[in-house]
Amino acid sequence: MALSAPSGRLRVATWARTIKPSTINEMLALTAGPDITSFALGLPAPELFPTEAYAKAAERVLSTDRRALQYGPSYAPLKSHVVELMRRRGVECTEAQIVITAGAQQALSILSRSLLDPRGQVMLERVAYTGFQQVIEPFSPELLVVPTSLDRGLDVDAVEAYLSAGAEPAFIYVVSDGHNPLGISLARESRDRLVELARRYHVPIVEDDAYGLLHYGSDSSGLLPMRAQEDRWVFYVGSFSKVLAPAARIGWIVAPADLVPMLSGTKDACDLDMNTFAQRTVAAFLEDGHLDPHLAMLREEYRVRRDLMDAALRENFPAGTRWRVPDNGALMWAELPGGIDCGALLPVAVETERVAYVPGHAFTTDGSRYARNCMRLNFSFPGRTEIREGIAALGRVLRGFAA
Amino acid sequence: MALSAPSGRLRVATWARTIKPSTINEMLALTAGPDITSFALGLPAPELFPTEAYAKAAERVLSTDRRALQYGPSYAPLKSHVVELMRRRGVECTEAQIVITAGAQQALSILSRSLLDPRGQVMLERVAYTGFQQVIEPFSPELLVVPTSLDRGLDVDAVEAYLSAGAEPAFIYVVSDGHNPLGISLARESRDRLVELARRYHVPIVEDDAYGLLHYGSDSSGLLPMRAQEDRWVFYVGSFSKVLAPAARIGWIVAPADLVPMLSGTKDACDLDMNTFAQRTVAAFLEDGHLDPHLAMLREEYRVRRDLMDAALRENFPAGTRWRVPDNGALMWAELPGGIDCGALLPVAVETERVAYVPGHAFTTDGSRYARNCMRLNFSFPGRTEIREGIAALGRVLRGFAA
Repeated sequence: MALSAPSGRLRVATWARTIKPSTINEMLALTAGPDITSFALGLPAPELFPTEAYAKAAERVLSTDRRALQYGPSYAPLKSHVVELMRRRGVECTEAQIVITAGAQQALSILSRSLLDPRGQVMLERVAYTGFQQVIEPFSPELLVVPTSLDRGLDVDAVEAYLSAGAEPAFIYVVSDGHNPLGISLARESRDRLVELARRYHVPIVEDDAYGLLHYGSDSSGLLPMRAQEDRWVFYVGSFSKVLAPAARIGWIVAPADLVPMLSGTKDACDLDMNTFAQRTVAAFLEDGHLDPHLAMLREEYRVRRDLMDAALRENFPAGTRWRVPDNGALMWAELPGGIDCGALLPVAVETERVAYVPGHAFTTDGSRYARNCMRLNFSFPGRTEIREGIAALGRVLRGFAA
Repeated sequence: MALSAPSGRLRVATWARTIKPSTINEMLALTAGPDITSFALGLPAPELFPTEAYAKAAERVLSTDRRALQYGPSYAPLKSHVVELMRRRGVECTEAQIVITAGAQQALSILSRSLLDPRGQVMLERVAYTGFQQVIEPFSPELLVVPTSLDRGLDVDAVEAYLSAGAEPAFIYVVSDGHNPLGISLARESRDRLVELARRYHVPIVEDDAYGLLHYGSDSSGLLPMRAQEDRWVFYVGSFSKVLAPAARIGWIVAPADLVPMLSGTKDACDLDMNTFAQRTVAAFLEDGHLDPHLAMLREEYRVRRDLMDAALRENFPAGTRWRVPDNGALMWAELPGGIDCGALLPVAVETERVAYVPGHAFTTDGSRYARNCMRLNFSFPGRTEIREGIAALGRVLRGFAA
């Protein structure tokens, strides 16, 4: 439903006149009941938050640093921690290339404002993170939509076809690891080719790595983000939201140093300085060495939940359902047999079995019917039992639908 | 200096190609030395922060509320506190009309994105808050510039002249109390006329009331914000930054309820949810009744600092200097005799006397020479002695310049 036109002839911006409440927000409303098992949102597990260590860090900051409640520039020690974290992710960078942001979302917003003109071109996949779609909506962009799939991810041939035909997108939006919504990671060859295309055609890549640190393979099995091989044409986006706490609202951009003043100025225009208290608290948490054991624990527990979901899907979902077991992140994408409309099924699932997911069509960028028979399932928020029982419940709904 | 063009033919958004580091940021760099007495920025006094009470509130929140580190919708109890605070400011509103934002700056950013089209019209004064100018810059707006002065503030006749001639600005930007940079408050008659014009011409007013709660007269002497008389055409912007702590990064919009979903969606696109921990901490601080005594203390101390600055200006500044003693806020605007160039004087003041301010021309919106002989002086950040000695030092610089 489109929002009703405001009374009294108040004119809103053109893009906002047809704005619809996002499907994700409708999900949130629909799935907010305490008795709902929700696979819908990409929330971290709250019972795994390092609340005690975070509280101690916060207390120490407030008792020792008077500037912790003041305005202030980005906190230099936090930038140093980010540089170190990036190094362990395989990315060499310096403090001068870091812009601290209010989460990955603000990083995407700042990069879009800085690179994209109104009605400019943006290249993205036919299913994409809805928050990114919201970011670019006010620019009324021309979308250059690229096929994507569970098997190959973003179709690099299609990217090349666009570029060789003269397309000049402001940037290409790519999630290398733990794709939202597909859950997959891009093959090495795809990364290499994308970097090469960015260089050849002078088109920047915005690499959203919000889930990059949540890797479930061995330490050596992961692939490097594209920023590891290209420091000029790849703008890297990272975040503490999924590995520490969303409430910190701290993410970052790694960008060419000469563009950092512009990006920082754009950030200031959004909401002035970063939260100084949150920056200092996260830095103190990292300083105390809490991140490594916390991350190891998260990887271990989320891997178990992922594998439970995989097993439950095998056991309960109809023959012909396809999914991939993700190497990163918190999301699994299930493609059901063709006739099943996952949008129509959701209210039934909520009503009869008190279980929720996001229908695939919520993520489409080109209005196509692709994804109509798909659902995105989150495995980080629900606990082990909820995953087993919730997927079984969804299986019952699907069998009822088929009957 | 414009930023150097990025190498390698990377195209940034058109508006960003000529971006200059803001004068305010240059000030920040220039005045960052520990031995500088700074009247430059509008910072609150850090020694007056309610750090202990805030720390207790934060500790209680983290020890009792597991959702404090999670994503989450705006915190309902905080909205209720804002409604109560607005009531005491003379504004009747409901929780359904509140959008919680990352400070007043994000409120201005969200309202601009929601109301303003690229190259649309915005009406504002010939000197205006630089942060607001940064907000609208990416829209490449057509500025409808209205005269303003220490004596009358925003010239309502000029507003009417524009509107009666057919101008259709997306909104009029107005600071009713504690104007930045002029320090003044609009007369009751001006407020009444602006509201009447907004209704007659169907043009919204964005009323920036960041300093509204820092009032230095008797409780009954203040004027009501425009939102108190008009709930459809006035979008009110408030903030905890100046009365509690900037680091909380919490402000709010009061808007017509039917526009709140659109404004909230625009906020989500900026940086997803608000910081849940900060919202809960501020709500706990308010719940404990800490705001009233804190605000009374701030008003008392800032009033003393304001009066000390007034006295020091009388004693030390050249004959013919004009200023007004503000009823609200933290800023005083001094108009010096015509020949004095406050931009040229600043490096001298910093070098010879280690004292800083913002030259008036930093705030101009129309490139005019108005404000060239003006300076903005902050009286909330420097302590009593610094105000006495710093203004005396500025007086010496001015006498040296005149000699």
